[in-house]
Amino acid sequence: MKATAIAHSNIALIKYWGRAAVADPGLNIPLNDNISFTKNSMIDDMKLQTITTIHFDEIYDRDSAEVNGEKLSGRKLERILRVIDVLRSEAKSNIKFRMKSINDFPTQAGLASSASAFAALTLATASALGLKINREQLSTVARLGSGSAARSLHDGFVYFHSASSHEQAFAEQICEPGHCDMHAVIAIVDESEKKVTSDAGHDLSAASPFNDIRIQRSAEQVMEMRQAILEHDFSAVGKIAEANCKYMHAVMMTSEPPLFYWNPETLRIIKKVMSLRQQGLETYFTIDAGPNVHCLCRPEDVETLTIELAALEGVKKLIPVRPGRGAYLADEHLF
Amino acid sequence: MKATAIAHSNIALIKYWGRAAVADPGLNIPLNDNISFTKNSMIDDMKLQTITTIHFDEIYDRDSAEVNGEKLSGRKLERILRVIDVLRSEAKSNIKFRMKSINDFPTQAGLASSASAFAALTLATASALGLKINREQLSTVARLGSGSAARSLHDGFVYFHSASSHEQAFAEQICEPGHCDMHAVIAIVDESEKKVTSDAGHDLSAASPFNDIRIQRSAEQVMEMRQAILEHDFSAVGKIAEANCKYMHAVMMTSEPPLFYWNPETLRIIKKVMSLRQQGLETYFTIDAGPNVHCLCRPEDVETLTIELAALEGVKKLIPVRPGRGAYLADEHLF
Repeated sequence: MKATAIAHSNIALIKYWGRAAVADPGLNIPLNDNISFTKNSMIDDMKLQTITTIHFDEIYDRDSAEVNGEKLSGRKLERILRVIDVLRSEAKSNIKFRMKSINDFPTQAGLASSASAFAALTLATASALGLKINREQLSTVARLGSGSAARSLHDGFVYFHSASSHEQAFAEQICEPGHCDMHAVIAIVDESEKKVTSDAGHDLSAASPFNDIRIQRSAEQVMEMRQAILEHDFSAVGKIAEANCKYMHAVMMTSEPPLFYWNPETLRIIKKVMSLRQQGLETYFTIDAGPNVHCLCRPEDVETLTIELAALEGVKKLIPVRPGRGAYLADEHLF
Repeated sequence: MKATAIAHSNIALIKYWGRAAVADPGLNIPLNDNISFTKNSMIDDMKLQTITTIHFDEIYDRDSAEVNGEKLSGRKLERILRVIDVLRSEAKSNIKFRMKSINDFPTQAGLASSASAFAALTLATASALGLKINREQLSTVARLGSGSAARSLHDGFVYFHSASSHEQAFAEQICEPGHCDMHAVIAIVDESEKKVTSDAGHDLSAASPFNDIRIQRSAEQVMEMRQAILEHDFSAVGKIAEANCKYMHAVMMTSEPPLFYWNPETLRIIKKVMSLRQQGLETYFTIDAGPNVHCLCRPEDVETLTIELAALEGVKKLIPVRPGRGAYLADEHLF
């Protein structure tokens, strides 16, 4: 009863911000349908992935978990138990576990580390418990740990449904990674932990006067985005993603208290992306709940874009990524 | 038939962005009611003022105007003629003029240089032509040159009405400068001219999905702001001003094409203001259509705030200002 899963983070092309008003907000049901691609890093020293091994055995007298060498307790342990307990209950088991997980990228810096973490945990746990559950159902379980983790279970481009019930709020694949030829260069400007986690930020969305409009526009944009991806129309994907990102950050900045996830360097990159585009290098920015910027581009522009971004003050690291594999099982375990 | 007027710029506490949909958009009628204070600089080398002398005389065979040593022609000359021709027509005169004007602050950097310019021009012209027109009526004429110029005619705190007709879209005083004890420190981060003038930017407001909500919220905020000023409630003035400013910039950033008036340094100051406030120095930011930031504060905090802001990277100049005189006539002429 041991399994290991590897998962990658994802970047939302249509963001969600705020949770659906259901009886249990802990269900992490997104306020609006959203779209992402699961991203695979193109450099070896930062693969933006989580590897998680979980072992259920009678030898353990209590549940224990360790992430990047840190033993989890309190709220952090409770958070992973939300996922594991659902699956343990499904397996009609109360057997204890030992879990060990390694992330190779900065945590909580708007790179969706929790997405890969909970996707890997969910897949590894279901497999260790011998459960036969399809990816859509698994995505609803991963969501309990982190909303965006639902998306990281799938390869390529992913559609994540808002809904009024746990079962209906699942993520499903739109198409394989190679269907829409698009890469991104992630510009890292800050690797420190966020002052306000997205988990806490979601609750503030309703405090912005622009929140309802963002939800309305996102409902239109999510349809347009799905179509643009299926038609592998890079320009349309980029334009819609950039606009949708700005709507989310406008809501964040105008909530009460306001959330300014952008750094001065974030704005410098935004302006650079707009100026490169005017000069003919077609790139679009999108930014999650953090200061780092994903610059979407065509595969053949990755190198030029990387050189241009590297010249900017405050850019600490550049990571080229492409749509890739979702969560998968591995043969080698961490213990 | 010669007169000289001096006017100062103003800072909007409730912004307007976008023009009312009337038959002639050149009327510059604001899309929403707005509030400002006319600001007087507290340092001598940058008084943020315009001095304008105009002379109507038979000796001139054509209209001529000069601003900071530059002869005006084309669109720039036409813009001042909009104001002067209305007054010449009122005076039933077609006598030619010579005008000379000096601004002592950076033009078009979001410091409302056009506000002081057109307020001074309007008052000087009306006086030179011997017209007896009250300030409210004068404000409608100044508005034809620059919307916000209507506000700079008045001392202290000013209410500028949106309306469906030229006559009703006037500015009037709310109260004298000393009524609400409030200063501001202007942090200049960029003195270069804006790429998109506010004149052009106004036409883009409707392209943001958030524009209608901004108008609705501004209608509420303008009432709250008026009340807060009359009750000299600095905290309320600051809070409402900061929120209202963010609404405008959210609209700007989400218009199509988007307008990012903020620089990286602008965001650095925003974050500093929020952090100072958490530390107990009560200050609020407000930003016009440009990168520079007005940090509102209590009079006794001007010095501390100036020191704190001076330590920030990218801050080029700090100008303390207070609510003060509007446009007035001077005895000394420029020629």
